[in-house]
Amino acid sequence: MDFIAATYRLTCSAAEVERLSCDIALEQTVEVPDSLIVCPALREAVVGRVASISSVPAGNLLRAGLDQFDVRIDYAADLAESGLGALLNLIYGNISLKQCIRLRDLRLPASALSKYRGPNLGVSGLRQTLGVFGRPLLATALKPRGSTPQDLARRASEFSAGGGDLVKDDHNLVDTTFEEFRHRIELCQRAVLDGSEQTGRTCLYFPNLAAPVGELERRIEFLAKLGIRGVLISPLIVGMDQVRYLADKYPLAFMAHPTFAGAYFHDGTHGIEPGLLLGTLFRLAGCDATIYPNLGGRFSFTFDDCRQIDHHALSPLGNLRPAWPAPAGGMSFDNLPQMAQDCGTDSIFLIGGALLGDSADLRASTTRFLDRIIELFPDSTSAPTTQLNAW
Amino acid sequence: MDFIAATYRLTCSAAEVERLSCDIALEQTVEVPDSLIVCPALREAVVGRVASISSVPAGNLLRAGLDQFDVRIDYAADLAESGLGALLNLIYGNISLKQCIRLRDLRLPASALSKYRGPNLGVSGLRQTLGVFGRPLLATALKPRGSTPQDLARRASEFSAGGGDLVKDDHNLVDTTFEEFRHRIELCQRAVLDGSEQTGRTCLYFPNLAAPVGELERRIEFLAKLGIRGVLISPLIVGMDQVRYLADKYPLAFMAHPTFAGAYFHDGTHGIEPGLLLGTLFRLAGCDATIYPNLGGRFSFTFDDCRQIDHHALSPLGNLRPAWPAPAGGMSFDNLPQMAQDCGTDSIFLIGGALLGDSADLRASTTRFLDRIIELFPDSTSAPTTQLNAW
Repeated sequence: MDFIAATYRLTCSAAEVERLSCDIALEQTVEVPDSLIVCPALREAVVGRVASISSVPAGNLLRAGLDQFDVRIDYAADLAESGLGALLNLIYGNISLKQCIRLRDLRLPASALSKYRGPNLGVSGLRQTLGVFGRPLLATALKPRGSTPQDLARRASEFSAGGGDLVKDDHNLVDTTFEEFRHRIELCQRAVLDGSEQTGRTCLYFPNLAAPVGELERRIEFLAKLGIRGVLISPLIVGMDQVRYLADKYPLAFMAHPTFAGAYFHDGTHGIEPGLLLGTLFRLAGCDATIYPNLGGRFSFTFDDCRQIDHHALSPLGNLRPAWPAPAGGMSFDNLPQMAQDCGTDSIFLIGGALLGDSADLRASTTRFLDRIIELFPDSTSAPTTQLNAW
Repeated sequence: MDFIAATYRLTCSAAEVERLSCDIALEQTVEVPDSLIVCPALREAVVGRVASISSVPAGNLLRAGLDQFDVRIDYAADLAESGLGALLNLIYGNISLKQCIRLRDLRLPASALSKYRGPNLGVSGLRQTLGVFGRPLLATALKPRGSTPQDLARRASEFSAGGGDLVKDDHNLVDTTFEEFRHRIELCQRAVLDGSEQTGRTCLYFPNLAAPVGELERRIEFLAKLGIRGVLISPLIVGMDQVRYLADKYPLAFMAHPTFAGAYFHDGTHGIEPGLLLGTLFRLAGCDATIYPNLGGRFSFTFDDCRQIDHHALSPLGNLRPAWPAPAGGMSFDNLPQMAQDCGTDSIFLIGGALLGDSADLRASTTRFLDRIIELFPDSTSAPTTQLNAW
């Protein structure tokens, strides 16, 4: 039998850890006390197995009388056979409502991984599309909401003409009607293509795919027909399996925004490790890139959180393509060398305010940042890009 | 201009509270620093307004040097005009990734509320369907996963024959294929109807609607054709706007399960109040009933959490129908009087283990619990029920 191995960090007393571990194994599978399981075969086939319990070194002790333990529970893989929703429910459903259980690690067997298509383009596909190799991508966001479509398009054009690789909508840019959406997207996409014509390079525009559920496919079909190659999407808002559904059906790049996900990270004794949710699980959902709040920005991720997300996005995961880590915020011209060292080659540097604030001329700022990145990655190359045909 | 008023509890120092409040108002709307907003009209129309800051009495102080403040921010209602996803993003999107911000209260103007259909049946519609008035409903769950469809159906029949009002699937009952789903549901629905024939009363069966996104509608259409009047659904797994979409399209009852939602509650200084998420927001999504882990059960909700959910489910919210609070777990024959006092008339008592453990005969246990509930609510009546036609 194949198993899904989930490792939880429990904050509890040594006297409790075994009972609490068994409780998790029951809660997430049969949701009845062990005493009510009358059939041994059912226990064998369905109830999770506590595979190991290991004490976390005392340096991590949190409160007097409480220790921490890493508990691995093996779940029969067929419990999540029906898909991503079943997997989320299995690994962190009801126990999200309990106390001090942090999901730290997840190992899926090949049989389970093979059911996920994963990123459509991933790192190499997006590199091929852009013709950019050996260096991080330079990206920015169109904002703020309330700007006219013409203003947004002008900024998109300047960024593109300055040599930027990828411009996405702010996740707050939500158009109420399809007509508003169509009008804004056509202007911005045209502006990005105009900028590209000046450089002879490709710059991609990823609009925000944010609409009521019944309207999502109409919008993505419009984008694909327009020749747009990717979208920004918020998995915790539209639903992770909704992203998976769209990514399976439409061969675009999906760049994930972490909005509404922060409650899973805030309390270090509970929730889900950022790398696992924004890295592994978003990648299962088909995300080609995962945005996260970078160290030193307006948010509170640590250096380790950031590196963990990079790792989960890029490391081997069955046959799924690696996804781009996309640190956002906390970047300036002066700390690009540090970013280069911390994040490495396969990273999307998502730079907003620093680019706008660098000079009054967004085109010039973009070029200055791009040149600096190329300087920091001397092996970087450009190649002819694939033709951007309408799909 | 109409406003959406969101009240956050901030845990911070008095010196910081004003700046942090302004940060929230910017972060959730324009996502740029105030200094980058060049157009006053944009600030007026889009940026949230800090409407009030009030200190929380010192009894709630958490850590030395930190106080708590309730901060109301008014957002222009049209920022969430496109629907529930935009609303979630507006009230708790990016700030979920910040520190110590708890969403405590939400007031939507009539113009915003009128865009939501809300529960299809709600409290009165489900009462009419069941012909039960003046008392809480008696409900149970079919489990555990791994049982044969025949075993589940037998239990459904016994509960129905014992006079139970509503039997739902466990949220862990996820059928991988449509054929497995069809087979199990047909058996269980037939069993519930057989039980009803013995009592002359109506018992409803709510199957678990849990499948990959592209499969949900096929399943719900099958259920509706079978004459099934409601489903169990997990909004944090399938997506809240997915529930809204289905509830708008299919005139069934939607009973919400809180699985995967617990990370929003665990840390009292962050996340969203349970009443707001499981009550108000689920009701906006069209949920007719909201299950929550009852005081005294395996989970950690407090008395106040439970009452707050009851309140948000039942209290006036535009023209939306009231939804049923459905406390689950922590109930026994002996504490029914206490439950009756705490929860009142409009409540679904979701009793699993206590009913199974009460005697070897589920039918007899159900009757015993039902009789006790009727005794505790002497004004309760039954009326002829509406015909359960296929839809």
